Amino acid sequence: MNWNTIEWRNGVLIILDQTLLPGETKYINAERYETVAEAIRRLQVRGAPAIGIAAAFGVVLGARQFRHEPDFCGQVNRVIQKLAETRPTAVNLFWALDRQKKVVQSGKGLELKPEQIINRLEKEAITIAADDAVINRKIGEFGASLLKDGMTVLTHCNAGALATSAYGTALAAIRVAVEQGKKIAVYADETRPLLQGARLTAWELMQEGIPVTLITDNMAASVMRLGKVQAVIVGADRITANGDVANKIGTYGVAVLAKEHRIPFYVAAPLSTIDLKLKNGEEIPIEERAATEVTSFGGTVVAPAGVKVFNPAFDMTPVRYVTGIITECGIVTGDWENTLKKWKDSTI
Amino acid sequence: MNWNTIEWRNGVLIILDQTLLPGETKYINAERYETVAEAIRRLQVRGAPAIGIAAAFGVVLGARQFRHEPDFCGQVNRVIQKLAETRPTAVNLFWALDRQKKVVQSGKGLELKPEQIINRLEKEAITIAADDAVINRKIGEFGASLLKDGMTVLTHCNAGALATSAYGTALAAIRVAVEQGKKIAVYADETRPLLQGARLTAWELMQEGIPVTLITDNMAASVMRLGKVQAVIVGADRITANGDVANKIGTYGVAVLAKEHRIPFYVAAPLSTIDLKLKNGEEIPIEERAATEVTSFGGTVVAPAGVKVFNPAFDMTPVRYVTGIITECGIVTGDWENTLKKWKDSTI
Repeated sequence: MNWNTIEWRNGVLIILDQTLLPGETKYINAERYETVAEAIRRLQVRGAPAIGIAAAFGVVLGARQFRHEPDFCGQVNRVIQKLAETRPTAVNLFWALDRQKKVVQSGKGLELKPEQIINRLEKEAITIAADDAVINRKIGEFGASLLKDGMTVLTHCNAGALATSAYGTALAAIRVAVEQGKKIAVYADETRPLLQGARLTAWELMQEGIPVTLITDNMAASVMRLGKVQAVIVGADRITANGDVANKIGTYGVAVLAKEHRIPFYVAAPLSTIDLKLKNGEEIPIEERAATEVTSFGGTVVAPAGVKVFNPAFDMTPVRYVTGIITECGIVTGDWENTLKKWKDSTI
Repeated sequence: MNWNTIEWRNGVLIILDQTLLPGETKYINAERYETVAEAIRRLQVRGAPAIGIAAAFGVVLGARQFRHEPDFCGQVNRVIQKLAETRPTAVNLFWALDRQKKVVQSGKGLELKPEQIINRLEKEAITIAADDAVINRKIGEFGASLLKDGMTVLTHCNAGALATSAYGTALAAIRVAVEQGKKIAVYADETRPLLQGARLTAWELMQEGIPVTLITDNMAASVMRLGKVQAVIVGADRITANGDVANKIGTYGVAVLAKEHRIPFYVAAPLSTIDLKLKNGEEIPIEERAATEVTSFGGTVVAPAGVKVFNPAFDMTPVRYVTGIITECGIVTGDWENTLKKWKDSTI
């Protein structure tokens, strides 16, 4: 890949501005935590694992900004708080920030100097990013085992390299299968309102020569009825203790359609996406975003002025629609609560 | 309504250019059949009943163009052929053109002069348009009987006044229910790729003060899961002898979702939309349109250059997903084949 979603270079967080893709490949050089917060809020960096990584480095930048303050640890905790307020649904954000919070806490306990704590925060962020790459690969390998030569996979939104530090989650399965010599083709839902499927997934796959066909979201049902896809793989923003899945708006509809057409529906996500604190999907906070995302399309206004809009950014897919959750520890296909808890605990 | 979808005035067919809505309310003055054919092909006029009416008047214009030709009837039949080639899926187009073909045939049999045949063609087109208005009203009345005070209805694409000569089909049911004093609210799917829901349905309903909330197509599943809608009503472009329904792409997905959420799914259409010549929906020709409809909007490119696209303009909903078909003769809810045949025969 001749591009990086997020890169930490000489103490600067370099973020690929995904709002400009596929037209432009431009990078943001973040030297302050506010720039990172804004990039997450504006979806310049998006995808649950990627925003976790970005936020972890955001804490490093913020800590550096406040290194001469008397209440250093208090300030860093406020930075963490600010970063946590950027987006509510993806749990990886809070998971990464919690890890940084623990670094601050233990540093405080050990009476370390600000510089030492900053070093530890940087090390932790680098570890989170590096781990994510390894996890992506493992998810890819487990996911690829589900894909047979000649299969066509439907995916929604972008759970690719652009949503993570390396191979992606859903797209990692496809990438590894292709590496293994299997012929895999992809249908990409364009994913309104922000068109991550059209702008990001199609772009990412085309860069690697993986055959991709773009459809509007409302064509997925026909594509399934016509027998054109044999599996669905999507990512996740949060998975609750019972296996319910929050992911990009439209995922739930795809899951219902897959069930109706007896097509397996897989969710690919690192264990950091699992939130054992929530019993089921009804408890997941669903972000609602601005009406203008729906009333305009690529900058063109497409609806009457003043029309009322409902714009949830995510939806919730009850686990009964899920064939399997592909994690770095293997594929969960049942006994959800126990298996997810066991695997999640093993990573802590 | 302070606008007309199609109007025949002083021998000119005035067509509201729907590709410019909601931004501009501009009319096309068609004095030649080629202008009508182009308007149908470009979706400046769309909706099964409306394109039937437009084509019927297109034949009048074409006949006038060739009134001094020696082979007048042959020329008019060629005009009919050209108009029939504009779009393949909506059967009302062929139904209206068949009616005009019969006028030409009987005129020829009676050895009428071109002017006399033109008069009869004009009378027939006016009848088709006037009948459609009456039919709209009847569909509205039958449809309204299904809607209770306080209900919220989801609709897809535009089966409103903009798709017909008067009240619409699906939207007629809502209009009549509102006239009857019932509080009815609407969720409108935006309906990619050409956004007829956002541009046309939302606009039409807002003009009349009927509460409408715009969503992207992939939000319909969530809206249903959250209990926000109690009925779905859509239009149709062709209904086969067994009750299978071709309608705007995305309709089939909505039907599957409605079934999963135990929400009734109604199709509102005049009997002219029923094609007894086709046994079932697998026989309906589905129009595929240009990739650029998916890869760009309003001039803004939203997908990588050269991406492969699948762009069917319609899909097919098997009758097992249909709760009822609302026609001008009543609502069919079962014994589809016999009832549709009996009612259709009664109109011929």
